[in-house]
Amino acid sequence: MQIIKYPEKETWANLLTRPTARLKEIEKKVKPILKKVKKKGDKALLYYALELDKAVLTDLLVSQEEIEEAKKQVSRPLKQAIAKAYKNIEKFHLAQQEKFKPVSTMTGVTCWRKSVPIQRVGFYIPGGTAPLFSTVLMLGIPAKIAGCEQVIMTTPPNREGKVHPAILYTADLVGVSKIIKSGGAQAIGALAYGTSQTPRVYKIFGPGNQFVTAAKQLVAKQGVAIDMPAGPSEVAILADDTANPAFIAADLLSQAEHGIDSQTLLVTTNEEIIQKVAIELVAQIEKLPRKEMARISMTNSRCFLVRNHEEALDLLNEYAPEHLIIATQDAKVLAERVINAGSVFLGNYTPEAAGDYASGTNHTLPTNGFAKAYSGVSLDSFMKKITFQHITEEGLQNIGGIVEKMAEAEMLIAHKEAISIRLRHLQESKANNQ
Amino acid sequence: MQIIKYPEKETWANLLTRPTARLKEIEKKVKPILKKVKKKGDKALLYYALELDKAVLTDLLVSQEEIEEAKKQVSRPLKQAIAKAYKNIEKFHLAQQEKFKPVSTMTGVTCWRKSVPIQRVGFYIPGGTAPLFSTVLMLGIPAKIAGCEQVIMTTPPNREGKVHPAILYTADLVGVSKIIKSGGAQAIGALAYGTSQTPRVYKIFGPGNQFVTAAKQLVAKQGVAIDMPAGPSEVAILADDTANPAFIAADLLSQAEHGIDSQTLLVTTNEEIIQKVAIELVAQIEKLPRKEMARISMTNSRCFLVRNHEEALDLLNEYAPEHLIIATQDAKVLAERVINAGSVFLGNYTPEAAGDYASGTNHTLPTNGFAKAYSGVSLDSFMKKITFQHITEEGLQNIGGIVEKMAEAEMLIAHKEAISIRLRHLQESKANNQ
Repeated sequence: MQIIKYPEKETWANLLTRPTARLKEIEKKVKPILKKVKKKGDKALLYYALELDKAVLTDLLVSQEEIEEAKKQVSRPLKQAIAKAYKNIEKFHLAQQEKFKPVSTMTGVTCWRKSVPIQRVGFYIPGGTAPLFSTVLMLGIPAKIAGCEQVIMTTPPNREGKVHPAILYTADLVGVSKIIKSGGAQAIGALAYGTSQTPRVYKIFGPGNQFVTAAKQLVAKQGVAIDMPAGPSEVAILADDTANPAFIAADLLSQAEHGIDSQTLLVTTNEEIIQKVAIELVAQIEKLPRKEMARISMTNSRCFLVRNHEEALDLLNEYAPEHLIIATQDAKVLAERVINAGSVFLGNYTPEAAGDYASGTNHTLPTNGFAKAYSGVSLDSFMKKITFQHITEEGLQNIGGIVEKMAEAEMLIAHKEAISIRLRHLQESKANNQ
Repeated sequence: MQIIKYPEKETWANLLTRPTARLKEIEKKVKPILKKVKKKGDKALLYYALELDKAVLTDLLVSQEEIEEAKKQVSRPLKQAIAKAYKNIEKFHLAQQEKFKPVSTMTGVTCWRKSVPIQRVGFYIPGGTAPLFSTVLMLGIPAKIAGCEQVIMTTPPNREGKVHPAILYTADLVGVSKIIKSGGAQAIGALAYGTSQTPRVYKIFGPGNQFVTAAKQLVAKQGVAIDMPAGPSEVAILADDTANPAFIAADLLSQAEHGIDSQTLLVTTNEEIIQKVAIELVAQIEKLPRKEMARISMTNSRCFLVRNHEEALDLLNEYAPEHLIIATQDAKVLAERVINAGSVFLGNYTPEAAGDYASGTNHTLPTNGFAKAYSGVSLDSFMKKITFQHITEEGLQNIGGIVEKMAEAEMLIAHKEAISIRLRHLQESKANNQ
């Protein structure tokens, strides 16, 4: 853990730098994969499953039997935990439903908006050692509330050609329409272009390694929407002397175990706590199965000693962390001053892990400073808002002159004419009626 | 106008194809421009102003004197029209403000969301023959309501080094913080990277030519948010025998005058109306100053004769038009079945031009079929939503076991420990108190 005491504001940008991904080199590897999937479809997916996942597949599609099998394999206590998390996530995302009332902007001019589900969405769920079934919940529950017609999930098979039962169980729970055994850039290609087994989707969600991220960015340029640009996961903790050093260490480590590039930040006004957290880290890290990964990640960890909470918040808003834990006495007051963050956790008993799994908020959040402009995934992410308007004859008479004047000034005379021709028609009808 | 009678569903995708931009070649030209701006800042902007806009600039920044001068040059009637449009746009976007109530997902577990303005946003306003001051209103009014701290606008200077007075007048009206005389890809570079005159922004809005679009997509890959991917403007009209052929022709032409690549579609169940519209088009096009452009654009126009309104809506939802005019008797009923569109206009007296300028809805909308996944610009576009949560000691006892179980199943033991260490602490405190 690198300790930085009272850094001057001019040095912040430098001190807060994140490691930049070598996207260019990765893109070079990803482009031919996407091309091949576009051209050869399922054949390419089967080829890459063998080549990259070392899995011999006879079918890309997860069968109903596999799902039934998975249901039996998931333990009852895990099912119960998932059911409770499901309920919380559902409750929080249901509260995000909006009803727009029509707005009468002028007499006879009525405008409104309507949220409409995106018809076909795709999820990418990573495989590997940690089966991220929680992400299936975080994407699947809002997609279900939104009413997306088709939800296509891709996830890499293991060497036996299987998918982790917890992933299949939760996918079934949230009503995923189809599960394709494919990972990496090739899965993103399948979702973006479609194959005979994979319906083409309009928006792709979900985390992934640098290949997946690069593939998502490339297909985004071709018009497929993506949830957000991705980077390594991050947590920043703001602590004062009321914070518990053991809790802070545990929260830092729960971020550090994600990967060697995970980012952890501790910002405090209290010098003593830094020492105490350091001691706790040494003790706690030993007990972790992923301690080697966590250790490497923690060497990049930065700890900032600052003069006061105002400075702390300025620094944190400049960093724009994915997760921000405020473990201070006046956490609620300080939370009001957070401008850039993905999700904020208040107090000593609100660990990030709660939001990662079960409290109700979404865990798909902007990393890499993107919280300055991006929101995390929410119900909105699965819908688009269409505007509507209706203008009566009287309304057109009220608004017509305004539009004519403005269109004329923009030298778009056909725009003006679209109004004038209607106004003339109304005048003529009126004259004929008299 | 190409007339297609009763096309089979299998042929739709082909018939609805849009021209694809040759983005690759354009990217090749744009990349060195972005690089130069990143490296040389204002010097590069001055260089390109001379090289591409043929303007000798002594200062990149629009001065207060220039704004005062512009205010005098805009006519009083135009000012009055702008003021009325402003009020309507403001009213519709004010109605988009949201208040989230905290949600208690479990006893002791409270989650909520908050909309926070994006601190620095950038607008690109094209120059050229048509001074698009209406776009300044469409972007500036929601940015103002959102409360964005800094709004940086870039717009190309003319050969005299000036900006159109209507653009300066409206920029001042909506409270733009700074106006930079720069256009094309170089302006996007300035907004994305910052120069000594241009503050770096977190999100870039606004229309532009293919160079601007390519530049926006390139900086988006580097983490700057953009409003949406852009393509040529489009209108689709659904008409029955109650529609007025002269109005339809006027609406088609008001789209066609935007540029030679503008897309226009007419879908109808009534064969007669096609002929009538064709006759009207010939008559009306003659009177337009931009008739040459409109004529080229109209050669790409497609007219679909379909069996019934259900087929019409399926076809239109497949196309996902930026603008959709429903000029039918049962417009309101049909509107309910629109799934993919940017903005919808109902009835004979609701021309697209009304929404382009003054009715209240935003005119920055998804083109190129992106309406399948993207919404138009709204108040949301200028804010991000941050989630918050607070868990009490009791709350942690309620949710702790769920999180532990799930984290364990995902093999993320440090996540589990972040909960367990707190639960143990609570248990110990309780034991000590007894």
